[in-house]
Amino acid sequence: MAVYTHVTPEELNTFLVPYGIGPVRSFKGIAEGVENSNFLLRTEKASYILTLYEKRVTAEDLPYFLSLMNFIADKGIPGAKPITPKNGKPLGQLCGRPAALIEFLDGVSADPPNLAQCENAGAALAELHLGALEFSEIRANAMGLEAWGALLRAAAPRADEVQTGLGDLLKGELLTIAAKWPTDLPQGVIHADLFPDNVLFVGDQVSGLIDFYFACTDMLTYDLGIMINAWCFDRQGGFEPEKSTALLRGYQAKRKLSKEERDALPLLAHGAALRFILTRLTDWLARDPTALVTPKDPLALLPHLAFHGKANSPSVYGA
Amino acid sequence: MAVYTHVTPEELNTFLVPYGIGPVRSFKGIAEGVENSNFLLRTEKASYILTLYEKRVTAEDLPYFLSLMNFIADKGIPGAKPITPKNGKPLGQLCGRPAALIEFLDGVSADPPNLAQCENAGAALAELHLGALEFSEIRANAMGLEAWGALLRAAAPRADEVQTGLGDLLKGELLTIAAKWPTDLPQGVIHADLFPDNVLFVGDQVSGLIDFYFACTDMLTYDLGIMINAWCFDRQGGFEPEKSTALLRGYQAKRKLSKEERDALPLLAHGAALRFILTRLTDWLARDPTALVTPKDPLALLPHLAFHGKANSPSVYGA
Repeated sequence: MAVYTHVTPEELNTFLVPYGIGPVRSFKGIAEGVENSNFLLRTEKASYILTLYEKRVTAEDLPYFLSLMNFIADKGIPGAKPITPKNGKPLGQLCGRPAALIEFLDGVSADPPNLAQCENAGAALAELHLGALEFSEIRANAMGLEAWGALLRAAAPRADEVQTGLGDLLKGELLTIAAKWPTDLPQGVIHADLFPDNVLFVGDQVSGLIDFYFACTDMLTYDLGIMINAWCFDRQGGFEPEKSTALLRGYQAKRKLSKEERDALPLLAHGAALRFILTRLTDWLARDPTALVTPKDPLALLPHLAFHGKANSPSVYGA
Repeated sequence: MAVYTHVTPEELNTFLVPYGIGPVRSFKGIAEGVENSNFLLRTEKASYILTLYEKRVTAEDLPYFLSLMNFIADKGIPGAKPITPKNGKPLGQLCGRPAALIEFLDGVSADPPNLAQCENAGAALAELHLGALEFSEIRANAMGLEAWGALLRAAAPRADEVQTGLGDLLKGELLTIAAKWPTDLPQGVIHADLFPDNVLFVGDQVSGLIDFYFACTDMLTYDLGIMINAWCFDRQGGFEPEKSTALLRGYQAKRKLSKEERDALPLLAHGAALRFILTRLTDWLARDPTALVTPKDPLALLPHLAFHGKANSPSVYGA
């Protein structure tokens, strides 16, 4: 849950003038996202999400994210469109923070997703990949392979506070993954954080992809590796092959994977599990016990890591 | 901010069946209230607030609160109306907690209120008092004079942790107030917590009174004493007589105070300041530093307490 910044009605009204969306009818902080302050805003014209970007988002990257969100919404891919005020720049300032007003999307996250939702989310990812092919801006993946070594070096000395032997385990996994990490697979815009939280459904239909604040340029199939971790395991860490099969079927109905992409799936899923373990471990070790946000459990993805390490064929995932 | 309980889409859908409001289009936890979990729910039919009552609300009192909210909404007083499901009982169960679905009201709290908002809020309070005269249920004020002694006895031994001499100061004030506390003023339903947070405005017009979870039967004018503390002081604790004058003008345009009620205003405002200091002090001393909610500063109302203690006439407040 996240509302870090208090916005007075006066500050809000001043901010909204150039958007021309009429007087505020309702304004409520919402418990969504852990990085930013989010508010649900209603005027007589429509409903919006107002996001204030707090310290963890790099301000220089915000124009990229908003530009991408705008691009894909214009392509008809279900995703929230930033509202552009009179000055033409969707990134404004409110309460001393970068801020953006974004179209409100109906929909509810799946928890846990059913098979139809896995299939439809896979199709939506393929639509995102295809729709953003012409998006010309480039952003390196700040949470890619190069970052993992640095994260692990910083976390390793205290990793055993979380679980005995964790530091050594992760070092071994990183060496294995880095030695084989592919470099020649098709690249493009990836969402890079498409957990069920970040897909809205109305019924089983995808109504929106949200939270593009890790989006970057990287191997398209890596996004599938992330989704396999996020969508296709139960709460105890047990792999659910029928969900993975549905996810990949949905994806491939829109964008067929090449043989090289299919063959790389176990490794990409393995790397994705490591990436989220490392960032969660970093957050866990840096947690402030008085803070509002409880960091995610770094150990929750250990079964995933072990599973992918043993997967010897893309057929394990249904590809 | 407050979302203490996680509600899955499946639990939500099951809960909503008897309400007949159609499939869920959107469901978001909102940062509102400190006692309960609140969610904004949209279906194709309308928008609603779903409240899960957490441990601090006494479950036996909930039917009274919901019945009162229903009664006053039916009287046309701006306030949120509970939705009644097929079984006729607006109080349900969700995730093991009492839960109610309540009409969503447009509007934004005033922060700080302007003079027109003070006047209109005063008028809305009078409408509530008059509209609820025929409400037949009775609930004693659990935070009335009788409770203050017990709160103070419990808090006094540690009160000086907050400020040196605070325990003795509050004991002296309670003796002064209790010795003169009126017993013969007109009684009825009071809101008992009508801070600016709990009044929604569209522009300067009141669109709704909310959060009736302290409502009870007590002296009507005591509600004005509470509002004077909550609406008519600046952030540094300086009294703003023009706001108080506007508040009382709005109230008296709908319900004229008797001479006895006017004369009791300084004492009732004095007691109201003490009531909120005592409950905030209790919360402060019991605070859990790892909790999501920061308790309100018990010292913020000390200037109010001193001011009312010296006020020798209702004309101080513009009455």
